[in-house]
Amino acid sequence: MYQHETQKRVRYGETDQMGYLYYGRYADLYEIGRVEMLRSLGLAYRDMEEKERIMMPVASMEMRFVRPAKYDEMLTIRTILPQLPTKDIVFQVEVFNENRKLVNAGTVRLAFVDMTTKKTIPAPDFLLEKLTPFF
Amino acid sequence: MYQHETQKRVRYGETDQMGYLYYGRYADLYEIGRVEMLRSLGLAYRDMEEKERIMMPVASMEMRFVRPAKYDEMLTIRTILPQLPTKDIVFQVEVFNENRKLVNAGTVRLAFVDMTTKKTIPAPDFLLEKLTPFF
Amino acid sequence: MYQHETQKRVRYGETDQMGYLYYGRYADLYEIGRVEMLRSLGLAYRDMEEKERIMMPVASMEMRFVRPAKYDEMLTIRTILPQLPTKDIVFQVEVFNENRKLVNAGTVRLAFVDMTTKKTIPAPDFLLEKLTPFF
Amino acid sequence: MYQHETQKRVRYGETDQMGYLYYGRYADLYEIGRVEMLRSLGLAYRDMEEKERIMMPVASMEMRFVRPAKYDEMLTIRTILPQLPTKDIVFQVEVFNENRKLVNAGTVRLAFVDMTTKKTIPAPDFLLEKLTPFF
Repeated sequence: MYQHETQKRVRYGETDQMGYLYYGRYADLYEIGRVEMLRSLGLAYRDMEEKERIMMPVASMEMRFVRPAKYDEMLTIRTILPQLPTKDIVFQVEVFNENRKLVNAGTVRLAFVDMTTKKTIPAPDFLLEKLTPFF
Repeated sequence: MYQHETQKRVRYGETDQMGYLYYGRYADLYEIGRVEMLRSLGLAYRDMEEKERIMMPVASMEMRFVRPAKYDEMLTIRTILPQLPTKDIVFQVEVFNENRKLVNAGTVRLAFVDMTTKKTIPAPDFLLEKLTPFF
Repeated sequence: MYQHETQKRVRYGETDQMGYLYYGRYADLYEIGRVEMLRSLGLAYRDMEEKERIMMPVASMEMRFVRPAKYDEMLTIRTILPQLPTKDIVFQVEVFNENRKLVNAGTVRLAFVDMTTKKTIPAPDFLLEKLTPFF
Repeated sequence: MYQHETQKRVRYGETDQMGYLYYGRYADLYEIGRVEMLRSLGLAYRDMEEKERIMMPVASMEMRFVRPAKYDEMLTIRTILPQLPTKDIVFQVEVFNENRKLVNAGTVRLAFVDMTTKKTIPAPDFLLEKLTPFF
């Protein structure tokens, strides 16, 4: 298992008139979580697209909303990789508020796509090499 | 069953550098779908909050991404209410592109909350009255 | 002068906890206004990028916020082209609420960029041909 | 004069199909800049709304786009308060990329509104007390 935490403050433009972080903005948090996890492994997603010509489109996502997140709260995004990626990669995400209460939890599954052929490919070796020590 | 369709064009600011509608913006489409479905029944969600003092926070959401949606495509959002709401309400959503190919499909479940007491309540009568003829 | 109007409803995710359309979302309205104006002339901005290989990045923008726009209001976006484009193109925008009161007004200036050379170019002929009859 | 810097990374969902930070997202950066400036003075904007019942709607904004910001770039947002606020408050903003090149520069002017009476008021004393030492 590999796990990583990063933080994100709720901004005004991300709230809605309920006064809470809009439900549609959690997918943005999930993206921040997995990109910062990859960076913690020494992998910039930007380089994956630009240098390796591999992109990672989202295949599916599910989440449940446990309690609201309020304006200006500093949220903690915990991203967990429960297993080594094979033909796709699954991230589990938990979002906590400042009192360490669970705000939202979910799962997102991404594919690997060769940007030249536009075909899906299995998890690339440079990613597996970074991850294998943790499993 | 009650079903409703509405349309939404993909705007530039909603695309990402893959050239596709960003995965995090589909939740916005789902919201448009269910709000316009309610409007087709003669119910404005705005009035539910302002007059009835009932809000409908999202409890859970799941979706799968079937094919990308491109900039400027006019998407069709089909929203389906498979059953009468009881303690919560479930919407099924299907998003189609201009060639009537499925782009995205998912489900979203919302609670009913009394804005005065902040407690969850069952589906309100004025909503059930509108919906019952279709079930 | 050429002028065009289009409509856009304020969605929940675009409001903030003041209960108003977030100030950062007006640029999105301006984009909708100018893209729909171009479409009314028979020009799809998508084709400009894909077929003509010309993109139109924004060079500057200014706007003033006259009164708030509320959730679910159907806004009217009036886009005005006060003069024929030369080396750049200027759009004036006025946003009105359902009572035809002015909500926001501003100006946005865009350049023309050849996507192959990445250099700015003057207004392309196919655009001038469409516009000249109105000036 | 009072000046403050903070940082913000360009996220995937904030890019558009040009591969750049969408022009409409700069207003979000400006908000981050001024909120973090206020925090550096010991003032949480959240408290201004919740405790002091004063909100600060944007009255006008102007910006120019100097060069594009790319996905994953860590931008520096410099926010400058050129003078003590009187009946409104003006922030100058400069956004720099990782090579310390100017990306965007602009000005935003906000009013002070008493949330109870909904009337504009002059700059509140608790804000002037914090700022006066710097002018």
